[in-house]
Amino acid sequence: MVSANPFPDVLADRYASAAMVHVWSPEGKVIAERHLWVAVLKTQQELGVDVPAGVVEAYQAVQDQVDLESIRQRELVTRHDVKARIEEFCALAGYEHIHKAMTSRDLTENIEQLQIRRSLVLVRSKLLALICALGKRAEQYADLVMVGRTHNVAAQATTFGKRIANLGTEAIAGLQRVEDVLSRYQFRGIKGPVGTQQDILDLLDGDSSKAHVLENRVAAELGFTEVLNSVGQVYPRSLDYEVTSALVQASSAPANLAKAIRLMAGQGLVSEGFQAGQVGSSAMPGKRNTRTCERICGLAAVLHGYCQMVSSLLGDQWNEGDVSCSVVRRVALPGAFLALDGQLEAALVVLNELQVFEDDIAAELQENMAALSATRVLLAAVARGVGRERAHSIVAEHVPKGKGFFAAVAVDSRLALCGSDMQQIRADPVMLTGAAVAQAQAFARQAGKLAAENPESVHYLPESIL
Amino acid sequence: MVSANPFPDVLADRYASAAMVHVWSPEGKVIAERHLWVAVLKTQQELGVDVPAGVVEAYQAVQDQVDLESIRQRELVTRHDVKARIEEFCALAGYEHIHKAMTSRDLTENIEQLQIRRSLVLVRSKLLALICALGKRAEQYADLVMVGRTHNVAAQATTFGKRIANLGTEAIAGLQRVEDVLSRYQFRGIKGPVGTQQDILDLLDGDSSKAHVLENRVAAELGFTEVLNSVGQVYPRSLDYEVTSALVQASSAPANLAKAIRLMAGQGLVSEGFQAGQVGSSAMPGKRNTRTCERICGLAAVLHGYCQMVSSLLGDQWNEGDVSCSVVRRVALPGAFLALDGQLEAALVVLNELQVFEDDIAAELQENMAALSATRVLLAAVARGVGRERAHSIVAEHVPKGKGFFAAVAVDSRLALCGSDMQQIRADPVMLTGAAVAQAQAFARQAGKLAAENPESVHYLPESIL
Amino acid sequence: MVSANPFPDVLADRYASAAMVHVWSPEGKVIAERHLWVAVLKTQQELGVDVPAGVVEAYQAVQDQVDLESIRQRELVTRHDVKARIEEFCALAGYEHIHKAMTSRDLTENIEQLQIRRSLVLVRSKLLALICALGKRAEQYADLVMVGRTHNVAAQATTFGKRIANLGTEAIAGLQRVEDVLSRYQFRGIKGPVGTQQDILDLLDGDSSKAHVLENRVAAELGFTEVLNSVGQVYPRSLDYEVTSALVQASSAPANLAKAIRLMAGQGLVSEGFQAGQVGSSAMPGKRNTRTCERICGLAAVLHGYCQMVSSLLGDQWNEGDVSCSVVRRVALPGAFLALDGQLEAALVVLNELQVFEDDIAAELQENMAALSATRVLLAAVARGVGRERAHSIVAEHVPKGKGFFAAVAVDSRLALCGSDMQQIRADPVMLTGAAVAQAQAFARQAGKLAAENPESVHYLPESIL
Amino acid sequence: MVSANPFPDVLADRYASAAMVHVWSPEGKVIAERHLWVAVLKTQQELGVDVPAGVVEAYQAVQDQVDLESIRQRELVTRHDVKARIEEFCALAGYEHIHKAMTSRDLTENIEQLQIRRSLVLVRSKLLALICALGKRAEQYADLVMVGRTHNVAAQATTFGKRIANLGTEAIAGLQRVEDVLSRYQFRGIKGPVGTQQDILDLLDGDSSKAHVLENRVAAELGFTEVLNSVGQVYPRSLDYEVTSALVQASSAPANLAKAIRLMAGQGLVSEGFQAGQVGSSAMPGKRNTRTCERICGLAAVLHGYCQMVSSLLGDQWNEGDVSCSVVRRVALPGAFLALDGQLEAALVVLNELQVFEDDIAAELQENMAALSATRVLLAAVARGVGRERAHSIVAEHVPKGKGFFAAVAVDSRLALCGSDMQQIRADPVMLTGAAVAQAQAFARQAGKLAAENPESVHYLPESIL
Repeated sequence: MVSANPFPDVLADRYASAAMVHVWSPEGKVIAERHLWVAVLKTQQELGVDVPAGVVEAYQAVQDQVDLESIRQRELVTRHDVKARIEEFCALAGYEHIHKAMTSRDLTENIEQLQIRRSLVLVRSKLLALICALGKRAEQYADLVMVGRTHNVAAQATTFGKRIANLGTEAIAGLQRVEDVLSRYQFRGIKGPVGTQQDILDLLDGDSSKAHVLENRVAAELGFTEVLNSVGQVYPRSLDYEVTSALVQASSAPANLAKAIRLMAGQGLVSEGFQAGQVGSSAMPGKRNTRTCERICGLAAVLHGYCQMVSSLLGDQWNEGDVSCSVVRRVALPGAFLALDGQLEAALVVLNELQVFEDDIAAELQENMAALSATRVLLAAVARGVGRERAHSIVAEHVPKGKGFFAAVAVDSRLALCGSDMQQIRADPVMLTGAAVAQAQAFARQAGKLAAENPESVHYLPESIL
Repeated sequence: MVSANPFPDVLADRYASAAMVHVWSPEGKVIAERHLWVAVLKTQQELGVDVPAGVVEAYQAVQDQVDLESIRQRELVTRHDVKARIEEFCALAGYEHIHKAMTSRDLTENIEQLQIRRSLVLVRSKLLALICALGKRAEQYADLVMVGRTHNVAAQATTFGKRIANLGTEAIAGLQRVEDVLSRYQFRGIKGPVGTQQDILDLLDGDSSKAHVLENRVAAELGFTEVLNSVGQVYPRSLDYEVTSALVQASSAPANLAKAIRLMAGQGLVSEGFQAGQVGSSAMPGKRNTRTCERICGLAAVLHGYCQMVSSLLGDQWNEGDVSCSVVRRVALPGAFLALDGQLEAALVVLNELQVFEDDIAAELQENMAALSATRVLLAAVARGVGRERAHSIVAEHVPKGKGFFAAVAVDSRLALCGSDMQQIRADPVMLTGAAVAQAQAFARQAGKLAAENPESVHYLPESIL
Repeated sequence: MVSANPFPDVLADRYASAAMVHVWSPEGKVIAERHLWVAVLKTQQELGVDVPAGVVEAYQAVQDQVDLESIRQRELVTRHDVKARIEEFCALAGYEHIHKAMTSRDLTENIEQLQIRRSLVLVRSKLLALICALGKRAEQYADLVMVGRTHNVAAQATTFGKRIANLGTEAIAGLQRVEDVLSRYQFRGIKGPVGTQQDILDLLDGDSSKAHVLENRVAAELGFTEVLNSVGQVYPRSLDYEVTSALVQASSAPANLAKAIRLMAGQGLVSEGFQAGQVGSSAMPGKRNTRTCERICGLAAVLHGYCQMVSSLLGDQWNEGDVSCSVVRRVALPGAFLALDGQLEAALVVLNELQVFEDDIAAELQENMAALSATRVLLAAVARGVGRERAHSIVAEHVPKGKGFFAAVAVDSRLALCGSDMQQIRADPVMLTGAAVAQAQAFARQAGKLAAENPESVHYLPESIL
Repeated sequence: MVSANPFPDVLADRYASAAMVHVWSPEGKVIAERHLWVAVLKTQQELGVDVPAGVVEAYQAVQDQVDLESIRQRELVTRHDVKARIEEFCALAGYEHIHKAMTSRDLTENIEQLQIRRSLVLVRSKLLALICALGKRAEQYADLVMVGRTHNVAAQATTFGKRIANLGTEAIAGLQRVEDVLSRYQFRGIKGPVGTQQDILDLLDGDSSKAHVLENRVAAELGFTEVLNSVGQVYPRSLDYEVTSALVQASSAPANLAKAIRLMAGQGLVSEGFQAGQVGSSAMPGKRNTRTCERICGLAAVLHGYCQMVSSLLGDQWNEGDVSCSVVRRVALPGAFLALDGQLEAALVVLNELQVFEDDIAAELQENMAALSATRVLLAAVARGVGRERAHSIVAEHVPKGKGFFAAVAVDSRLALCGSDMQQIRADPVMLTGAAVAQAQAFARQAGKLAAENPESVHYLPESIL
């Protein structure tokens, strides 16, 4: 209730990057609104509405002078937030020409779309950075053989680079989804209280071609290429869901990366890295916790919750609209972007600082060689004419012998294996990894191509994190 | 990431009451933590731990001196939020005795529970206020006959007081749920990094009865009566879900109230009230919007999203715990309470200011009398020996005649109705409302009883809202 | 627990169309699996794996002979569902050649993707039918002037065709989203237990180009054009979310349509239509309920819940995979498609049978003319030099006068209106609807274009519904 | 769409127990409805409504003769499901006396509540069985020392029994929640189309005390002790949420148990057990997968989705009600109960068959002894006068030495440790577990007490699972 005491937004305060915070900050929003007002005013002038010389410039000159406290004081009087911001801007400029033939929604709907669009561009850029970072790691560890696990237990050999490529494949799908949204994202436009443009047409002498020009110029000024044809007071809320569900999808690869590292850290195979001077645990010296990875998972859960808020608006538009969606979008739209942004920042930090304990990975591989080779032994026995089901049960007998496994199967005459069979079975572990290396390299190439096309993203450095 | 610029939490800034905001505010949290530290320190001293005279008092003396900026500066150095707050408190007191044998979670888990408990007490009190306000309205309109609607079309007559009593019945169920949670809400206690109390036992010379006393005294100091027996680093997150799902349940009656008013406003039967000087629409003079009711619905949706965040923590505890839940709870717990609080405040405002247009309600009733009386005509015809299915189809023929309905059925010999039948059918509309008046009054009595038992809640005045 | 008693799936039993039910039915799934097995077997043969002549044909010959009971009996013995289905197919064909070098997931993942793809094609087709139906209604009612409502109360005039065009605009966005998913939907392929293709490479003598050909031919056979590069045992679950979130988005326009009709029915302006012989209410003759519209809204809520189940799998892949997602996908994937399908069927029925009460719409318009004209009066007064704020408060005084409004403002000298002002204000109501007619027609043209490109969809007739 | 082909409900077919399936099965529902009709009819007779002798008995005699196909055929004619079931029951009994003065909702609302109540009783019983089984395991492994992990890495020592007690503590909270719901669960009653009891009062000559008796007798007959005072056509949907959110809460402890086992299986410490003849993996002989635990987690996710469907009904009641909630509740209510039931069954199986590899647990403990003892070394050094921060960094130096840790700290003069210090540090590992044993035993006693009070639950055997 318009308090003077700071109760900071947690995500903006602790997790998200300065660039994303700016888009959704109160100052950022005020500046964006003024940007829109000026664009509308300038276009109105061009279309013949009487706007004296110097007025547009007067507004432009004060566009970035944001005094939130002054706006707050005005709102306490007007009890209407948009009105307070109109008055403030007019007072600064010394004129009263903005917001002509507009309703509040002509301002707020479009500004939120602008914030969404700018945020999507940021997200796209960080996803590219993430894919590049994954590509480098996939390349680096393309042939580092390790235990592949299904059901969390040893299954077949794979390589660490391939495991990363799996995540990279998902990240690319997430990127494509975000790019799709961006490419189709349409502007609501200046449509008036029930979407008929009645007021703007009244202002423009009923000239619908002028109304059309107005909308399209303003859209272009704000970076949009298309305008929605027919909406009510509000644009369809399923467009917000299209956006936030894309964010949720994009958060999956980083969350899976974090989970993979948390599991591997539990086996002592990797560490998410330690920053200089960092203390793992104040009570337990020497402890290395995957705190950032845990945060990545937590931020995904937060994002899901915000997306649910948005989804609750679907199919709930009454007639031409109302403000039952207002508080939901005030909370959920910035929340979703700030959460994903914090997650991507954290994932980039983790990828940069990841420590891989190759010796421990090799040791784990050796310990599980029996289990990992079981399929090969089975196939070799079948190739020697043993029935598949019978071979299966014999091999299963020997697996628990661990390191004694190979000796045991070699001499078990029921399996009919010869020396060359055993040689093939115990070959270089990388022989057990099928197409893993090739898959890792294929992904690395894809990432490299994206990097080449988007050089600025490769060099993006995440902010340091708490 | 520790920005100096204000990016206020939207719910705290615009929707929730000062009391609830205080519980979850940064200052409020710091003070609560110090409260816990002092309680632990005092009890440690009583149990024989060496704490020099004057130390407890020194801490107590500075307990309320909160300088968030100073804490922020310390965190930039330590990169550990709890450590920063320990240092600040110690620097203020001039001693280094707090947090002995405690881990961060011994602080944070218990403080969050304290915040939750205090918030639940606030919620309970506002639910009582809501029920009292509903009770008064149910009493006031117990016999105001109106069109009862199912499928949004006229079905049978009811009374407005009874419709409110329906909501009140739901509100009471919500209150009982919150009271249940409060009555069983258990304190995690001082359990150490994996929940074994190893460190606190080391400090207390392995004396488990002392550890027991410590926990229970601290719990009592903070208002808890029971302590959880066995937990890990964290208490079970399903307890957080127990709380937030109770909040969601409690939000249903206010949301249904708001929806009822929004629908009735669409028929011109009520208005949520206008505050002096309020402007309904800057573009459309004279428009009276149910903005506050729409906000009530929106806040419910927000609350649902926060509850989903919390629910995502269920069944996801790894071993003794980690911090993947940290950001989720930082966002969702205050979010859920602030959203419900804002909703209840708004609902109280609406109930206080509700305008009921009795003439319009009566007019709507008359317009729909044919449809509302159809059941009665049907029953009367059946009582006169007409087959039920036949009577049904004959009556259905006449319903569309609207005001001509009664004349038409009276003379339709197939229905075999006599004058006294028609008299009974067209009796005082309240005769068509069955037990509605009694139900409304029964609820009003229940509410009155709760009011008598909780006099402070009856007089609670919501804050004025934006 | 393999029960013999029928406990039918509710959505398949009561709501979804036969075509969609077939895709997800046990029989449909068995046939799809056999389709895949045969495709793999044929390609293996082409690539040199030893498959005797006649074997492929033997399998093909029995592909459609599905005896679920026999499969169930086999599963009771093998306790492994995939194994039971392999045995059944082999027993029917008289050979044991399928599923070579495949794991269960090589079957199940790909089959689920096939079911998803086929379902998406069905969804696309029904969305097209919906858009065509909306287009026809938008055209039909393009200039039927009605009260536009914001906050559920009269705001400005609009047309019913334009209100439909708003929904159509949203429906087109939903269609584009579904088409995007379809165009990018990639096949997992035959990747083996940890995704390395080790087993298939073993079978194909380590020839990776053959493995590549195998995957691509099988993919093509099933209708896919692209294959995922690197996955684990499972494909990324965010692809499932991409699909189900597209379904949720697509459900928004029909749900908004249903809500619009439910609200309008409450004002007596439309009816969702009655099928011959239908009884609205057994107790209340003559009652016309929007039951189908309510169902449309309910099915949307069901769909949202299934989408949440799917979203809970995001970021929760452990290593190369496990089956914690199995029951979730068994429930949620068919559930989501069946729910949306039932919703679209119902929406098509409603659009076909919609009854529009033009007289009542006109009467409502007249009743609200004062409120609807208030903006125009305001603008006219401002044009005459009255201060905007002053004019606003004067007009607001007169609005409650209803039909007396025009007379009152005409003679109120403070507003300075002349006769021609009043004439313009009280012009043909369609003059109050701005670009509404044009927007409705523009949407109708868009829909017509889609119809021309997809003639089969225009003629789709929904199944009759319960 | 009333299909004749079986499309079984997945949860009923594969996961839930026969008892729970029966409650929600079509047959079970038909029988329950008849139970209600007979109870109403009998009470109407007792209250003076004219019901010829023998009629009640005639209905009772055929109560269990359920022919779903016959009902389906009737529905194809009537197009009204309740009507079809009325006709079938009447045809069987040879009378037409049931459903008098009732609407469909007087049947369906109460029957659903009956199904819910019966299901809650089943859930309560299985939660008790789960707690008993956890209690036995906590007792059995109370002093089995193991590595306690936070952030998935070694933190401090704990015992396996204590880890189970953590889960047991959560399970007891879940049980209490379910018991609360049961104890307060109120019956809607026979309230008529808009909740006013108009029709039932008409039947009972307007005698409200008779209407009261009717409701209470019927409620008692169905096992309810309290009846809601004032409702509309439907009871408040937040009561459904109260139920399903309790189920979600109850699912958390089993899900956490499953996750603990999945993590421990990854370390080779436990196995969820193998049933005789079970094959872990068809491709990989010897593999032991935690498939049942993964299912437990999956069913929890399914349950969450159903609970979300239910929560979407909150705050969305329009006036006296409609059927937009119908399909949601048809899907979500059985779904939620079947999912939880399947989860609890699976959890009981896992607890019964759990294999604990004590040697591997001991070996892991030894490997991590350095990390686990670090806190103790730190405290000992501090006790010898070394500054805490200095000691912390020295100890952190030595932790990576693993088994060489103890020798290294013993001789590091900076830590000032003497022989008796080292003796204490390297004592019996159970000395490192604080109150773990006592906590495990305390929980076992609690569980034992519950077992003694509910002997039937101790002996509950889960069904064998697929």
